[in-house]
Amino acid sequence: MSDPKHDVIGIGNAIVDVIARHEDSFLSANGLAKGSMQLVDEAGALELYDKIGPATEISGGSAANTIAGITSLGGTARYVGKVADDQLGAVFAHDIRASGVSYYTKSLSSGPQTARCIVVVTPDGQRTMSTFLGASALLGPEDILEDQVADASITYLEGYLWDRPEAMDAFRKAAELASRHGRKVALTLSDSFCVDRHRDSFLSLIRNGVEILFANEAELLSLYETSDFDKAVRQVRQDCQTAAVTRSEKGSVIINGDDIHSVNAVPVDEVVDTTGAGDLYAAGFLYGLARGKPLAECARIGHVAAAEIISHIGARPVATLSTLL
Amino acid sequence: MSDPKHDVIGIGNAIVDVIARHEDSFLSANGLAKGSMQLVDEAGALELYDKIGPATEISGGSAANTIAGITSLGGTARYVGKVADDQLGAVFAHDIRASGVSYYTKSLSSGPQTARCIVVVTPDGQRTMSTFLGASALLGPEDILEDQVADASITYLEGYLWDRPEAMDAFRKAAELASRHGRKVALTLSDSFCVDRHRDSFLSLIRNGVEILFANEAELLSLYETSDFDKAVRQVRQDCQTAAVTRSEKGSVIINGDDIHSVNAVPVDEVVDTTGAGDLYAAGFLYGLARGKPLAECARIGHVAAAEIISHIGARPVATLSTLL
Repeated sequence: MSDPKHDVIGIGNAIVDVIARHEDSFLSANGLAKGSMQLVDEAGALELYDKIGPATEISGGSAANTIAGITSLGGTARYVGKVADDQLGAVFAHDIRASGVSYYTKSLSSGPQTARCIVVVTPDGQRTMSTFLGASALLGPEDILEDQVADASITYLEGYLWDRPEAMDAFRKAAELASRHGRKVALTLSDSFCVDRHRDSFLSLIRNGVEILFANEAELLSLYETSDFDKAVRQVRQDCQTAAVTRSEKGSVIINGDDIHSVNAVPVDEVVDTTGAGDLYAAGFLYGLARGKPLAECARIGHVAAAEIISHIGARPVATLSTLL
Repeated sequence: MSDPKHDVIGIGNAIVDVIARHEDSFLSANGLAKGSMQLVDEAGALELYDKIGPATEISGGSAANTIAGITSLGGTARYVGKVADDQLGAVFAHDIRASGVSYYTKSLSSGPQTARCIVVVTPDGQRTMSTFLGASALLGPEDILEDQVADASITYLEGYLWDRPEAMDAFRKAAELASRHGRKVALTLSDSFCVDRHRDSFLSLIRNGVEILFANEAELLSLYETSDFDKAVRQVRQDCQTAAVTRSEKGSVIINGDDIHSVNAVPVDEVVDTTGAGDLYAAGFLYGLARGKPLAECARIGHVAAAEIISHIGARPVATLSTLL
């Protein structure tokens, strides 16, 4: 087994975020559950877009944000995700390549447009997302190349992929290839509603091949259908090797067999937009892990990256993260 | 002459801004003159886009920013400018309509893409712009409708239109229609290099039909080819009825015949991005003027709007400006 070329290969939905700010009342008026990600069809996306007012477009996508964070930290990374041959697809490809990420997934020349996620940011900085998957949902197993997976220390998968059958097949293929080549597999649960939609198959995957699990508190509780955090921790300890559970301003808890580390969050002056907090925590953690750091140090790097991302609009780093370490 | 339906009709280049932050050294390495707007062709735009790194897309365009500011202040306004039938054109149309602006210019179904302006923001908040005019340059006299001009108290034109012959014809037609219907004509000089390109025809236009001239200090000095501000003031006083000259943090000077008002800028905690400062000053000033306020009050409203815009990324208001007055 030769040394891998990349620290991480990330696979996910390639999405451009459309960000607007609103009061909480906007969420209730439009039937949006605060803090969640809901899937919408093209008509639903257009209807909501009509209502959100002037917006800002920034490249997004959960795993893509993580991968851009890893290169910003000084790591090497590849991204796999599908856009269409349109202007938003060009924007997505530009931004991720400009971050130093290897990105060569074949784009879609006909069919649905590049995916977009309408992100409503409320005054507390929380984001509520409505995603039209568009071209991103047509990522399939043919887009997962064995040498690319073999060439990365860690294969990182986002739970959101599980929402569409072609993407799920791509997800499974990547996990199998990584195991076959002796590489680590990491998974983020993405969203508590996503966990609710796919609980059994997530559990089966976690028990069979996921070495590193990322979840926030709500997602972990949803996974084990409990409101008792300690109980969920006991269960996840049996199900996978390492779990990193984020708890917003309370920091994160790293569960690794009998070892449990609690790591503090990095305080910020003002929380502007929490979009990408979990994605960037994962970026820091994975970067540390790929570079052989102890778990508590991995978590610390994760919190540094998350603190940068929540202090501005958008889920891609503005600062060069390596200078913050 | 019946009461007009709109306070202002604005005519300009319909552009989506592509914003990235860089050190000053990036400007010199790429031959960019700090604080200026240069025109680039599609190849030039793509070459620069390759270099700027990850970016944020926000609707822009000088007069469009002004018009969006006027509705945010509680005024009524129409915008005329041309986009293509593409995703960035849809973003532009969405954002300006979502601001409450009447915008119905026929979009281009074939030919160049929607215009974009690559804005490099340096650490001092200054912006340096490279504009690919694309579809916006194909605005022509056929897009200027007599009833729309007649229906607005003030017709506002941006100097940038002067860079292309079709747009120049549209510009002239709008100014003539406004005069014919007893409406006021306002012009912004846009950029000192733009003034340098078109000095004689700008002077001729200002002397024959422009009631309100907007310029910053550099543009006014360029117009009269002098480095003596007082001399430029004496000249502009003879050439047009009212001139509003912005002087960055020093505020603005309003010249109206023998009356000269100096009005202070509104201080801000941190200058994040000066993009749109002049555009939003014009928004406040025009709103005040259309609502019959005294000139010093018009300038004050302009400074309030400019202060909001320079405290965040992007040249469209984030706050509802009417609540800041």
